[in-house]
Amino acid sequence: MHANYAIGVDVGGTRIAVGLVDRKGRILRDAKALTPRGGPFAIVDAIIDLIGEVSCTVQAGEISGIGVGLPAQIDFARQHVEFCTNLPLAGVDVRALVMSRVKHQVILDNDGNLAAFGESRYGAARTVRHFLMITLGTGVGGGMFIGKEPYRGFRGLGAEVGHMVVQMDGPPCPCGGNGHIESYLGRPALAARGRELAKTYRGAAILEQAGGDPDVLTAEDIVKAALAGDEAATEILMEAGVILGRGLVGLVNLLNPQMIVVGGGIGEACPFLIDRAAEIIAAEGLAGKRDVKVVPAELGNDAGVLGAAALAFEESDSKEGLSR
Amino acid sequence: MHANYAIGVDVGGTRIAVGLVDRKGRILRDAKALTPRGGPFAIVDAIIDLIGEVSCTVQAGEISGIGVGLPAQIDFARQHVEFCTNLPLAGVDVRALVMSRVKHQVILDNDGNLAAFGESRYGAARTVRHFLMITLGTGVGGGMFIGKEPYRGFRGLGAEVGHMVVQMDGPPCPCGGNGHIESYLGRPALAARGRELAKTYRGAAILEQAGGDPDVLTAEDIVKAALAGDEAATEILMEAGVILGRGLVGLVNLLNPQMIVVGGGIGEACPFLIDRAAEIIAAEGLAGKRDVKVVPAELGNDAGVLGAAALAFEESDSKEGLSR
Repeated sequence: MHANYAIGVDVGGTRIAVGLVDRKGRILRDAKALTPRGGPFAIVDAIIDLIGEVSCTVQAGEISGIGVGLPAQIDFARQHVEFCTNLPLAGVDVRALVMSRVKHQVILDNDGNLAAFGESRYGAARTVRHFLMITLGTGVGGGMFIGKEPYRGFRGLGAEVGHMVVQMDGPPCPCGGNGHIESYLGRPALAARGRELAKTYRGAAILEQAGGDPDVLTAEDIVKAALAGDEAATEILMEAGVILGRGLVGLVNLLNPQMIVVGGGIGEACPFLIDRAAEIIAAEGLAGKRDVKVVPAELGNDAGVLGAAALAFEESDSKEGLSR
Repeated sequence: MHANYAIGVDVGGTRIAVGLVDRKGRILRDAKALTPRGGPFAIVDAIIDLIGEVSCTVQAGEISGIGVGLPAQIDFARQHVEFCTNLPLAGVDVRALVMSRVKHQVILDNDGNLAAFGESRYGAARTVRHFLMITLGTGVGGGMFIGKEPYRGFRGLGAEVGHMVVQMDGPPCPCGGNGHIESYLGRPALAARGRELAKTYRGAAILEQAGGDPDVLTAEDIVKAALAGDEAATEILMEAGVILGRGLVGLVNLLNPQMIVVGGGIGEACPFLIDRAAEIIAAEGLAGKRDVKVVPAELGNDAGVLGAAALAFEESDSKEGLSR
């Protein structure tokens, strides 16, 4: 018998969100916390607390399993965290740590893959077979779907959309590379650009959003200033849109996708950034540019939780199917 | 009954090669000509002549079909040439023109896809399931195989490996974009770099290879000078290897392939260029760098012909299979 609910966990560089999800992709209960800075065990503790909060009213037998999205490269078959830029989870057996404290099966996946999973099953990409998702957040991640299924590559490490090179002599990326999409569009990179401008009179409106203190200025302050009409803030985000477009042009040429879904906190707050990227693709892409729609994500912050739950449902169903 | 032979046609920016191929991937007869400069009909005439040359000793019934590789983006399902950088074939119904003059089924595909097809069936990638091929020639092309099958994308336009952006403010690409891999590694780009150096004393050895005339200096002259030990020529190709590596790092991060096969005339002549690219991947890639082998193509100039023949065999066999 297929259980009616799954739990989706979305661990981000900034916050952890957990939801109890039904088979129609509705989040029935949810809970959030800031991602603890104290190390891997503190992160696992926070995950366990939030799982407890959302599942306390439901019988264990009604839960298919728990999907956990991490901002990490994961060897999917071995469920091993290989590489994690923004959190101290590389080499940590997150799955075993969580499973030792819950009664359910746990499956890990990359957070970008799971956001794409959510959009594929319940969101903007419901009707398409080949698409890319790019999530603009603290890191820049994403996922790639072929024939409705996630493309993971040889060892499940794909698809790191944010770590394509767009400017080989460009600024350093938190991953250690240079000139990646994330080097320009991650929150820290945008915030640095805002702080630079805040030293000049042109950055006044951005600085005001940060309460006058350039040291606490965030990417969101730039977004807010831009949405309030500030020219310099808009310029930063338009430049970011051009860079995003240049990165996506290469992917359109390589992959000929039907759709590119742009999500993540920054992507969703900035429709004009997405539009600018779409203009660049239309101007600079090869023939595949005519096939691709560039659209905002539909699930907002819930994409990761919903994708994690969808993965848990499908893993559980396929195992039941196999055992029959 | 499965016919024993197929004809592979490889149309390049510089020359056309045609081969009569058996089911073991042996080229039994071959013929080559320079690619005519006179327009699409002259190109089709040359293809027909070469097909006649290689097939004159074989009964029509013994030929499964003809595969034709073009240096073009092709809508594979519609067999339509969408975009062609180096030859005047965009919008030309090459398949109908060839089929009107031969007794066999004809199938078109992108030349990079077919080189990858050849390496997958008979060459360096025989034993792997997920790989990328990049061909360094007049243009830079390639192909991408997932689970032993070519990835073509939504409308069959993929995988244009050479038109990934590596330097968004970089030099123009023949396709109209900027800073693509082809902007740096296509024969014209390399030759331009050689001509620039030939203006100075450092380019003396390269200029000598070109017979002292910078106007006729080619990419091959740089390769020859480098192989003869010239420092400046080696430097140009080492720089090219770094750029290739930076482009491939993004693809390793995105796709987590098992293997990258480097082919094309320039790729095959320059093992140290391939080694340099592999070093960059090892230094700058995310976790997937440990999975990927970067290897030279094994089929040399024959990859395109063999891949085209393999495609013709498989298309013909699958249709016979369907009709039974």
